[in-house]
Amino acid sequence: ADREARDAAAARQGQLTKPPGSLGRLEEIAIFLAGWQGCEKPAIERGRAVVFAGNHGVVARGVSAFPAEVTAQMVANFRNGGAAINALAGAAGLTLDVVPLSLDRPTADFTQAPAMEAQECLAALNAGAAAIADADLLVLGEMGIGNTTSAAALALASYGGTAADWVGPGTGVDAEGIRRKIDTVEAGLALHRDSLTTPFEILRRLGGREIAAISGAVLAARMARVPVVLDGFIATSAIAPLTVRNPAITAHCIAGHCSAEPGHRRLLSALGLTPLLSLDMRLGEGSGAAVAVQIIRAALAAHGGMATFAEAGVSGG
Amino acid sequence: ADREARDAAAARQGQLTKPPGSLGRLEEIAIFLAGWQGCEKPAIERGRAVVFAGNHGVVARGVSAFPAEVTAQMVANFRNGGAAINALAGAAGLTLDVVPLSLDRPTADFTQAPAMEAQECLAALNAGAAAIADADLLVLGEMGIGNTTSAAALALASYGGTAADWVGPGTGVDAEGIRRKIDTVEAGLALHRDSLTTPFEILRRLGGREIAAISGAVLAARMARVPVVLDGFIATSAIAPLTVRNPAITAHCIAGHCSAEPGHRRLLSALGLTPLLSLDMRLGEGSGAAVAVQIIRAALAAHGGMATFAEAGVSGG
Repeated sequence: ADREARDAAAARQGQLTKPPGSLGRLEEIAIFLAGWQGCEKPAIERGRAVVFAGNHGVVARGVSAFPAEVTAQMVANFRNGGAAINALAGAAGLTLDVVPLSLDRPTADFTQAPAMEAQECLAALNAGAAAIADADLLVLGEMGIGNTTSAAALALASYGGTAADWVGPGTGVDAEGIRRKIDTVEAGLALHRDSLTTPFEILRRLGGREIAAISGAVLAARMARVPVVLDGFIATSAIAPLTVRNPAITAHCIAGHCSAEPGHRRLLSALGLTPLLSLDMRLGEGSGAAVAVQIIRAALAAHGGMATFAEAGVSGG
Repeated sequence: ADREARDAAAARQGQLTKPPGSLGRLEEIAIFLAGWQGCEKPAIERGRAVVFAGNHGVVARGVSAFPAEVTAQMVANFRNGGAAINALAGAAGLTLDVVPLSLDRPTADFTQAPAMEAQECLAALNAGAAAIADADLLVLGEMGIGNTTSAAALALASYGGTAADWVGPGTGVDAEGIRRKIDTVEAGLALHRDSLTTPFEILRRLGGREIAAISGAVLAARMARVPVVLDGFIATSAIAPLTVRNPAITAHCIAGHCSAEPGHRRLLSALGLTPLLSLDMRLGEGSGAAVAVQIIRAALAAHGGMATFAEAGVSGG
């Protein structure tokens, strides 16, 4: 990030007509964006939400409340403008791109084999990197029936604990479904245990295409200095393997919200991220991050639009 | 609230293309607004922020980091468009009205006398009621150097505890300033103890004009079925005396945020309100509530804009 722009933004915050610090996280956000955009008064002009979609072999193990065909049906819904992310991206002034990744070819069931071949995982990483285009703020979302199970496996492989620590109801499975998810995650970790030696291997063996695409997009955004608003448990799990060796990889990321999916709070805490919102959302699609963009816009409106004490003729404290 | 519209909105939420409940508080907000607006698909077309301003006799006791003239200076800043609430109301699509209440005639120091005569307090209540005009959503804010001390006194008179439970740094006083605030609140409660027998007496003896105006606006909004987004500690303290005898008076209110001013969390908890946002803001002016309106707009965008499972041809869970 650009230290000079950050410092200028921080100095500006100290001059605006309010007690110092009284806008709380809105001040932090404005200063954060100033650093990544290299500009004292940052703006969102090309905000973009990208939803990656993929299908999962582990669905065969009864880990989701919805059938696998819903992934493609929801991609059609995104394209027709009928999903939550359409409405929420629109309300936040974001363009929306949808990137389905070989939906007709689900990943392998990771309890039997690596979810992806190396080549497939690389292709997904590259698809994610390509999708950031010329955005100046990114919301990265996912759709993939069964993918909270992959997310739990990635979190467990990255941060340890037990499968039960990371597994939750997802779209709404019952106690038996949760038991099946735990068994699936445990079986996956047992099968791959000796091979989970690099972030790439963790991602390819336990992840999914839409998850790898988010990893690729976060990495590409970092190279391009584009701030990223992270969504829920699955989107956050996409960077978990990267953060173990390099915690600073999240420096250009804002945790948009804390999902109601219980593993998310634990994962954010492991990553040292404090979410902007906590609204009991658990939908994915980038929906929580898109709502968080509203807060970011409010932060920039105050930062750029307020008068200083000197301009307004207001006595300082 | 209109039960039929609420029920219709709740039924609609169950049909939208998402797992039931997965939009969390966004769903609750849409259903809440449907009830108060009497409409299955509520909208904000005449959203209004009103900032009431008043001056406080207790400023003479050294309870604020800023001098009393800042109240009038900030009113000028509001009118010139330079304050946080200007930027934040603009970003949230709210019109902004500013209502200064006899700034050249501060309330009496409540450690010496009732803050207001009955007639003054009534006039302030009426000014608040008049300010709601034809709004379909209200953000009620305040500006008044010294008014966290009044707010602490109102909270203490309403919900008990000790002065220290409700006193905080406000705009940023140091430990000695906090000590002076505690002493002031204790002296006020001691002087008026035997007279704090009705909400009106609590408000007039320990409150301020801008605080009474918020009480009046909340009451008038209830009669007109207009939902109110509550701001921080001071705005919430304005209804504290009303809630003791009638907790349901908050039924048309959303707690917009939880302020960094420590008494606010305690007061929200006493009132049984769960704030939408928690962003460490502590500015007042309606600023936190205005940011919360962005979340409400997102909720309505999803509620009104999403396709149902049937419309989208998506398989249910």
